[in-house]
Amino acid sequence: MLTVNPSRLLDDLRELSRIGATPEGGVHRPALSATDLQARDWFRARAAAAGLICRQDGAGNLSAVLPAADPTARTLLCGSHLDSVPYGGRFDGALGALAALEALRTIQEAGLQLPFHLEAISFTDEEGTHISLLGSRAAAGLLTEADLEHPHSSPEAFAAALERAGLRREELLTVRRDPASLVGYLELHIEQGSRLQDAGLEIGAVTAIVGIRSFWLTFSGQAAHAGTTPLFARRDALRGAASFVTRAAEIVSVDFPPGVATCGQVEVAPGAFNIVPGRARLALEFRHPVAETLDEMEAALFALARECAAVHGLEVAFASVGGVEPAAFDPDVVAAIEAAAGALGLRCTRLVSFAGHDAQAMRAITPAAMLFVPSVDGLSHHPGEYTRDADVINGANTLLNALLILAGRAWEQERAH
Amino acid sequence: MLTVNPSRLLDDLRELSRIGATPEGGVHRPALSATDLQARDWFRARAAAAGLICRQDGAGNLSAVLPAADPTARTLLCGSHLDSVPYGGRFDGALGALAALEALRTIQEAGLQLPFHLEAISFTDEEGTHISLLGSRAAAGLLTEADLEHPHSSPEAFAAALERAGLRREELLTVRRDPASLVGYLELHIEQGSRLQDAGLEIGAVTAIVGIRSFWLTFSGQAAHAGTTPLFARRDALRGAASFVTRAAEIVSVDFPPGVATCGQVEVAPGAFNIVPGRARLALEFRHPVAETLDEMEAALFALARECAAVHGLEVAFASVGGVEPAAFDPDVVAAIEAAAGALGLRCTRLVSFAGHDAQAMRAITPAAMLFVPSVDGLSHHPGEYTRDADVINGANTLLNALLILAGRAWEQERAH
Repeated sequence: MLTVNPSRLLDDLRELSRIGATPEGGVHRPALSATDLQARDWFRARAAAAGLICRQDGAGNLSAVLPAADPTARTLLCGSHLDSVPYGGRFDGALGALAALEALRTIQEAGLQLPFHLEAISFTDEEGTHISLLGSRAAAGLLTEADLEHPHSSPEAFAAALERAGLRREELLTVRRDPASLVGYLELHIEQGSRLQDAGLEIGAVTAIVGIRSFWLTFSGQAAHAGTTPLFARRDALRGAASFVTRAAEIVSVDFPPGVATCGQVEVAPGAFNIVPGRARLALEFRHPVAETLDEMEAALFALARECAAVHGLEVAFASVGGVEPAAFDPDVVAAIEAAAGALGLRCTRLVSFAGHDAQAMRAITPAAMLFVPSVDGLSHHPGEYTRDADVINGANTLLNALLILAGRAWEQERAH
Repeated sequence: MLTVNPSRLLDDLRELSRIGATPEGGVHRPALSATDLQARDWFRARAAAAGLICRQDGAGNLSAVLPAADPTARTLLCGSHLDSVPYGGRFDGALGALAALEALRTIQEAGLQLPFHLEAISFTDEEGTHISLLGSRAAAGLLTEADLEHPHSSPEAFAAALERAGLRREELLTVRRDPASLVGYLELHIEQGSRLQDAGLEIGAVTAIVGIRSFWLTFSGQAAHAGTTPLFARRDALRGAASFVTRAAEIVSVDFPPGVATCGQVEVAPGAFNIVPGRARLALEFRHPVAETLDEMEAALFALARECAAVHGLEVAFASVGGVEPAAFDPDVVAAIEAAAGALGLRCTRLVSFAGHDAQAMRAITPAAMLFVPSVDGLSHHPGEYTRDADVINGANTLLNALLILAGRAWEQERAH
């Protein structure tokens, strides 16, 4: 079986991790920042050194291409992203982008002539410094003018970032890839959780990415004097919100596995030691891989909030702050990952991704799936994020062989037509 | 029986409420602000118009005095304060100061010659715009240099306020009244709660002011990815804090009546929809009239916090942010209030004050107590704060007659020695 060059890939990972390196051992490469642009230059140089063609689209998505003999051939994509969250880790994104580059180099060195162009792609701003999944959503035709008007940073910061990267706002919505030109998309990523480690497994074949819904829950009661208002007479908004926080986790654990719900922020008004809270605004986010179950979770959590409000004499209002629908991956691509892992003798399981990834955008235009390798202790978005060398190599080899399996199957299907 | 001039008192209240009046029907007279100084000028003019002696001490405490024939006589004090919380109500403080003034005028008009100087006093900054109970604690010798160094506003704002009022910082600690010169202190105040209204009673004879303790409780866990971290694996600081909020109110209700506990603020870190809270800082305040019970409440609430932390794999730390010990009032002064109310045919009950007042400072140097009149719906520190005319007059008459009873008893005691 074809396998990657382990020391070349590990050296690349080490070298890339020096760009934006932080004293704590992580990297700081927010999308389109100076360090992100430096990482892109380095990637271009590595691709060129390998004799691969280098390309960048109008959304800043950066590709190394190993062309097929036939220039009209379709393209098989693999990749991830070079940007990081602020003060994040060395593996999130970087592993997938460099393993994709390494897969192309390995195939090229082996002298394999595939019937498809192979493209290792790094998408712009996966982490959403400005706009989450900016590059992959642009490539999938999912990015909208409305998205561009509400960057997470600020319109000014976003405009400055585009200019720094030599990108033009008006081109961002024009880079959609033609589905007919694509064979599929594969993405290797660290798990960012500890299920593989806990189960002693080496590869996760990701069958779906959870859907996410986010709401502000505003509990409204009556601000009152913290001394002269007896406990029974209070309409304490924080008590309602606290009761919801406590019970929401229980309900989701029991009734909606493997879903998760998080209350990540609370804002209390007036917000003083000696005033009973009149208002408490709670950030609620919940995730599940199945769309219908996500609806049921929403109904159950809203009913709980209304009950917690009623018990304390409060009103509760719900304001959506966006969401992502669950994304099921292509069964054939998942099967190719399992087949590759099996052929390599690696212990593999199917699992769901609880975090968003570029693959969930790309699946809109081409058969896609992801594979995970273990993260030590599940640490991620953290300078201590770490994946062992052996797992890096296992992941890259599985990616490489899954690409070959997919290419083979797609070629058989083309010929059968 | 001697009774006050109802229309004169109600007119005074109305006139005073125009100083710093807000569109919502309340008043904005933070201590030593322009409106507070205007209110003081108005009070001086009213006292002078009644032929009373006007005085101000080095802490800005403003007095109208009806002198006894004997210049070496002791002084019987009554009063409250003219300042308000920002955008507060018309009765908190103002009622007690004006009823005291009216009591002096009534005694003077009746031609009563008391064996004591009578003094209607308005204390500086009861509400703590700069320093809580500034004037009464200065008069009681309880104010310290440390207090002056940490005003609630800022050292600059406090210095500017003193200058505006013509006060000098170095004089604030020199105005302690000699206990041997005092007979007692009586303060009429609105209830700021609804116990009198709910029970259909007219006068509350206040036997004690609750002690107050305030702490920041910091629950510390582990910030984590809100998708990839399963619910069972989380060390969610907000879940620990929420569980505490929910259960603290239950414990205090059941085990520590008539105590109250309030969580008035929460600060969550990192504080994002998609991050499990690693830290939650909770503002806890609790009150009880009995010192030993306050100790027991503290122990029970801390034990609860430790238990809530342990259940969620958290640490919890406690940081005191000050407190006030419970203040029991003088039984003879309370009895004088009850006797006065009884003589006037008013329905009276003993109760505890859950809010702080100048009387709790003054009791350190002289026998003191307070009387409450109903606040409609318990509303206070609010523009809608309201006490009916009849209750205003009942309160003033009870204050007046309690002063006469106290003066009579004190005179008997003096003669008996």
